[in-house]
Amino acid sequence: MSVIDDLATEFSRLPGIGRKTALRLTYHLLKQPPEQSQRLATVLAGLAERVHRCSLCLNLTEEDPCAICRDARRDQSSICVVEEASDIGAIERSAEFNGLYHVLGGRLSPLDGVGPADLSVRELVDRVNLGAVREVIIATNPSLEGEATALYVQRQLASSGASVSRIARGLPVGGDLEYADGVTIAQALSARREM
Amino acid sequence: MSVIDDLATEFSRLPGIGRKTALRLTYHLLKQPPEQSQRLATVLAGLAERVHRCSLCLNLTEEDPCAICRDARRDQSSICVVEEASDIGAIERSAEFNGLYHVLGGRLSPLDGVGPADLSVRELVDRVNLGAVREVIIATNPSLEGEATALYVQRQLASSGASVSRIARGLPVGGDLEYADGVTIAQALSARREM
Repeated sequence: MSVIDDLATEFSRLPGIGRKTALRLTYHLLKQPPEQSQRLATVLAGLAERVHRCSLCLNLTEEDPCAICRDARRDQSSICVVEEASDIGAIERSAEFNGLYHVLGGRLSPLDGVGPADLSVRELVDRVNLGAVREVIIATNPSLEGEATALYVQRQLASSGASVSRIARGLPVGGDLEYADGVTIAQALSARREM
Repeated sequence: MSVIDDLATEFSRLPGIGRKTALRLTYHLLKQPPEQSQRLATVLAGLAERVHRCSLCLNLTEEDPCAICRDARRDQSSICVVEEASDIGAIERSAEFNGLYHVLGGRLSPLDGVGPADLSVRELVDRVNLGAVREVIIATNPSLEGEATALYVQRQLASSGASVSRIARGLPVGGDLEYADGVTIAQALSARREM
């Protein structure tokens, strides 16, 4: 095996990258100045070593606690619960939420063998029971598993005294009613708000 | 900048990988065992160092001459001319050609500032003029620039005595006449062969 094949093989392990794309990326890098592959190699080599879970919210971070948990200007009484650390970036970009996060590390999925014990629900309940948290917003994905996870988390928090809410489902901004699926339209109708 | 941002930035320099995909790849690697990023890093680090151009055909190789040029079982009298080293793999997979290759290193493209001096046409003419080459097959892409390049190469070889041919254009196998463009259909018609 040549280094070209090796690199194509490693690239093709990444999600959404097939053999052809992997070869294209490899040949692309060979046409670039060597510094580009070197930089990519350096960053990759440091990835697993430098990135860890925040001990408070389980976000991926290089410092513990993470920048969000350390930020005293953020509302410490509100926690947004997400499936994965990558979801935090999406919510932060909306600039609509100024509280803290909690990363579950997945969602309930019996078919994939993911049960409640595999998610950090216990840690969430402990955080809420400390008393400073007044609101928990469950922002798991609007999928079947995400809804089941939301329901489970809500039940675990039922006796905590914090208000538990679920992000709204409806038509995405810029979406087209004509192409929306029936379930989304049904949700959008039943969650209608007076204007 | 965190290492997550750094890696996403490096990934997004690759062709066809936007910011979102780059972030997805990064978070994917963070969920895998650290060995996977390490392996990718190691292969990348060795890429530019280990891969060079074959001094005969300009193919990318770790040994000089490359495996194809060294293979005595291949027909030394036939040279297939391609734009890029990556095209060689595609032709090899067809198992239809058993001669040698010559990599031009691009195609004539005045708009991108690529002229004849930027391609290895001189080296090709020298190889053919050594006398052992009887046939040159020009397999540049069937694009406007590829055709212009083919024409230029053919003219440079006109006085060499070797027979110069161009790969056939026509409908791709498994293609659909209904969705083929007019130029391809015209080429397929004019290049028709008796059955």
